[in-house]
Amino acid sequence: MDRQSPIAQWDIFEAAFQGPAAGNPYLDVTIEAVFSFGNRDVRVPGFYDGEGIFRVRFMPDAQGEWRYRTIANVSELDGRTGSFACGGPRAGMHGPVHVRDKFHFAHADGKPYFPFGTTCYAWTHQPLAMQAQTLATLKDTRFNKLRMGVFPKDYIYNQNEPLYPAFETGADGKEDFDRPNATMFRHFENQVGALRELGVEADIIIFHPYDRWGYCDMGAERDFRYLRYLVARLAAYANVWWSLANEYDFLLDCKPIAQWDRYFHIIEENDPYRHLKSIHNGEATMNFDHRKPWVDHVCIQNWDVKRTAEWREAWGKPIVNDEPEYEGDIPRPWGNISAIELVHRFWVTIMRGGYAGHGETFMHPEDLLWWAKGGELRGESWKRIGFLRDLIEADVKHGLTPFTPQDGRWVFSRVSGASDGDVTYLYFGEHQPAAWAVGLPMEDGDYEIDLIDIWAMTIERIGKAPLPASPGLRQRNGAIVGGEPEAAFGIHLPGKPYQAVRIRVRK
Amino acid sequence: MDRQSPIAQWDIFEAAFQGPAAGNPYLDVTIEAVFSFGNRDVRVPGFYDGEGIFRVRFMPDAQGEWRYRTIANVSELDGRTGSFACGGPRAGMHGPVHVRDKFHFAHADGKPYFPFGTTCYAWTHQPLAMQAQTLATLKDTRFNKLRMGVFPKDYIYNQNEPLYPAFETGADGKEDFDRPNATMFRHFENQVGALRELGVEADIIIFHPYDRWGYCDMGAERDFRYLRYLVARLAAYANVWWSLANEYDFLLDCKPIAQWDRYFHIIEENDPYRHLKSIHNGEATMNFDHRKPWVDHVCIQNWDVKRTAEWREAWGKPIVNDEPEYEGDIPRPWGNISAIELVHRFWVTIMRGGYAGHGETFMHPEDLLWWAKGGELRGESWKRIGFLRDLIEADVKHGLTPFTPQDGRWVFSRVSGASDGDVTYLYFGEHQPAAWAVGLPMEDGDYEIDLIDIWAMTIERIGKAPLPASPGLRQRNGAIVGGEPEAAFGIHLPGKPYQAVRIRVRK
Repeated sequence: MDRQSPIAQWDIFEAAFQGPAAGNPYLDVTIEAVFSFGNRDVRVPGFYDGEGIFRVRFMPDAQGEWRYRTIANVSELDGRTGSFACGGPRAGMHGPVHVRDKFHFAHADGKPYFPFGTTCYAWTHQPLAMQAQTLATLKDTRFNKLRMGVFPKDYIYNQNEPLYPAFETGADGKEDFDRPNATMFRHFENQVGALRELGVEADIIIFHPYDRWGYCDMGAERDFRYLRYLVARLAAYANVWWSLANEYDFLLDCKPIAQWDRYFHIIEENDPYRHLKSIHNGEATMNFDHRKPWVDHVCIQNWDVKRTAEWREAWGKPIVNDEPEYEGDIPRPWGNISAIELVHRFWVTIMRGGYAGHGETFMHPEDLLWWAKGGELRGESWKRIGFLRDLIEADVKHGLTPFTPQDGRWVFSRVSGASDGDVTYLYFGEHQPAAWAVGLPMEDGDYEIDLIDIWAMTIERIGKAPLPASPGLRQRNGAIVGGEPEAAFGIHLPGKPYQAVRIRVRK
Repeated sequence: MDRQSPIAQWDIFEAAFQGPAAGNPYLDVTIEAVFSFGNRDVRVPGFYDGEGIFRVRFMPDAQGEWRYRTIANVSELDGRTGSFACGGPRAGMHGPVHVRDKFHFAHADGKPYFPFGTTCYAWTHQPLAMQAQTLATLKDTRFNKLRMGVFPKDYIYNQNEPLYPAFETGADGKEDFDRPNATMFRHFENQVGALRELGVEADIIIFHPYDRWGYCDMGAERDFRYLRYLVARLAAYANVWWSLANEYDFLLDCKPIAQWDRYFHIIEENDPYRHLKSIHNGEATMNFDHRKPWVDHVCIQNWDVKRTAEWREAWGKPIVNDEPEYEGDIPRPWGNISAIELVHRFWVTIMRGGYAGHGETFMHPEDLLWWAKGGELRGESWKRIGFLRDLIEADVKHGLTPFTPQDGRWVFSRVSGASDGDVTYLYFGEHQPAAWAVGLPMEDGDYEIDLIDIWAMTIERIGKAPLPASPGLRQRNGAIVGGEPEAAFGIHLPGKPYQAVRIRVRK
């Protein structure tokens, strides 16, 4: 039995074994390991890493002594055993993110996780200096999730050659989809690790249609094999999320729905940590059936963010609107909203109980657009999105529950508001009331009330004001009917757009 | 036979007769007249105007000699005859507005009518000086439709006593709903006439729930009688539109759906001119079934203006979104959007093939809010709405047909665009592309292309530019699939929000 160095909780234990290099071990050799903790067994698939090396990776979720034993279809890899001690987590490490409280997320250690993601689809395929720049930029932002593709991208503003091909080149000069390029995958997983160190979840896009290499149409069996390989390599990274596709519906001609379901199942079969799984649509009318039990949260592309509460109702899962359009100026309708509009869409989404994603698409003489390649941010929204994250993390304990028209507060089909325990937010957006009441506490008390300018990023303490006039309709010779539930007091507001209010019970 | 003075086409011919004043002629006496033009007969109901006077009003729609004969249930009013000559219309008079081309409107003389309405629900119930001010203000704007209630209004910011009660006060000190107050109705119709002279359609709201007098719950039979009376008095005004209700769904407890249908039918039975009939909802989910054949156009209250093309599909009638929220700052969520947001909603609505309505609700120390009382405009949107009307009237011949996702131009679920014959508009709103192509002509030609700033109200001639890069997706080893239809050329744009483009074939 091989005794290895201690591993921190949620870090990666790796065992490597020399095995056969002849033929095609990717096709022919299977290896997995059973990791044991007391009487608990966890099955973990291994993978071939080239040059006769086979690896098994494991992310321990419990502190104490772990043992393992391999199972392989070649004798030299079978029955290998070892052990290691798992200690406490490193500082800042909170374990993988899972769904909590139906519509929200938390890390394994219980710390709430509020996604504030951005998008650099092909950043790991750019020159290394630019990749370093991407990581440096991310460090200066408050983004804590990154959408990124395994495969390189062929699309407008994305015609450069990738750093490495995804598969080895065969004797015929073509890529051999039965021989993954270990160099590419090693580089990819190292960058996933680099994100983990920055506290950024890697929302890994497994398939996408922007392709000139044939990766998007390798055939079902090759897809299944690639997926098992990817999961075996990457699942031990605590910050992995599985995004089955970007715009899966643009791939329906070669990957029918049942095949997408099978992808989900293969991940479930091979990922012992049950990392989050989702699938992203292209057309707004082509959402996947997110009610299927193997979809953990709803990942959508949709600009109509005031519908967020409606989507919660429809699917009963966390809503992550990863593409509520991007800040930018390119001639594509999904890539040119103003900075204030994207910040506004973040606020509307979050104040209706969902989460939103950032992207940036400004034209650049060398086609260096953040949304695809990373590098530098050039827009104005990212700072305000960070400001919003700071606000949310300061007070929200579990996740926000929106006021909805179904509460009898029909007002909240127009403006936005949400609460969690002792904190309530109202967000007015394009509305600019000079006074307000609905959504404020129904009982008077000791509250801290703050006016927030979402663009200027200012927070100003304001006081209570008299309740403004209410519109109860008089009917039937004077009986007052209708009107919405009111509040215990009112507030005065500046009468300009893009303002929010935070109400906290004074401690 | 009584020979009367000539009448201009679409003006009002009126015959008055002395009849019984005893008892209650409103309940007991029926009078109508048949107006004849050659072999054509038109039945026109009359009404009791108080003090023993009965009137029949008629709006001739054909030039030449008209005769009439009365039919009444009292002998002194029965069989009365007369005639008059109808000449050409007065300058600026184009006759009543009707639906044309399924989604649009035109006057009787064929002139297209594009509604650019505003709202002063209770303006005819304010002090006379304020009413004069309302008319003077309207004259300075480009609004050509006004939503206005027959009855006064009891609601927030609307607690003042009306100028006249709608019914006479009985011996018990209460209003007698069987005795209309001729003074009030005469005043009301005079103001409808004043609007006609300004070229403003009167969108007359017959019932509404904001009531402390009992007008909204008089009982079905009294409602029916009031409706016949109103139609007999007012239908001869060329600029009348019948709006069955404001927020009809807040009256469903006393007026069930079948009763609303009956109101429509009573108008059809009594209005020989078939003025436009519609009905306005309160809750966004409570639209009337506008497919019913007695609904001429769809009048809605809905802030979600990007759905306009969807509503056209659903109902197949002109869409008039009379309440896409109001410019203002009051603490009601429907009454406090910014000026730019309301102008934006007008553009989105029109560029998706509908029409929008204006309202203004700024808090005022004496509760003088334009939306209810008229008076002065204090906002910034009305000028820009007038600018939009001027643009549309300059080039649109029939009405705009939107580009929709169903055209294969999915882009137009995000940005807005529409065309009519030789003119095409694109409207970008919160989008700020620095270049563009989709929606521009598919064939090259001699075009006048103008950049329009919807807020600054500037129009700037711009030129063609190279076609920007297109995102056709490469799949299956290089085959390009997907992408939207492109254009023959591109344009450069300033990369800021709230811009539109007009493309005209050069004559």
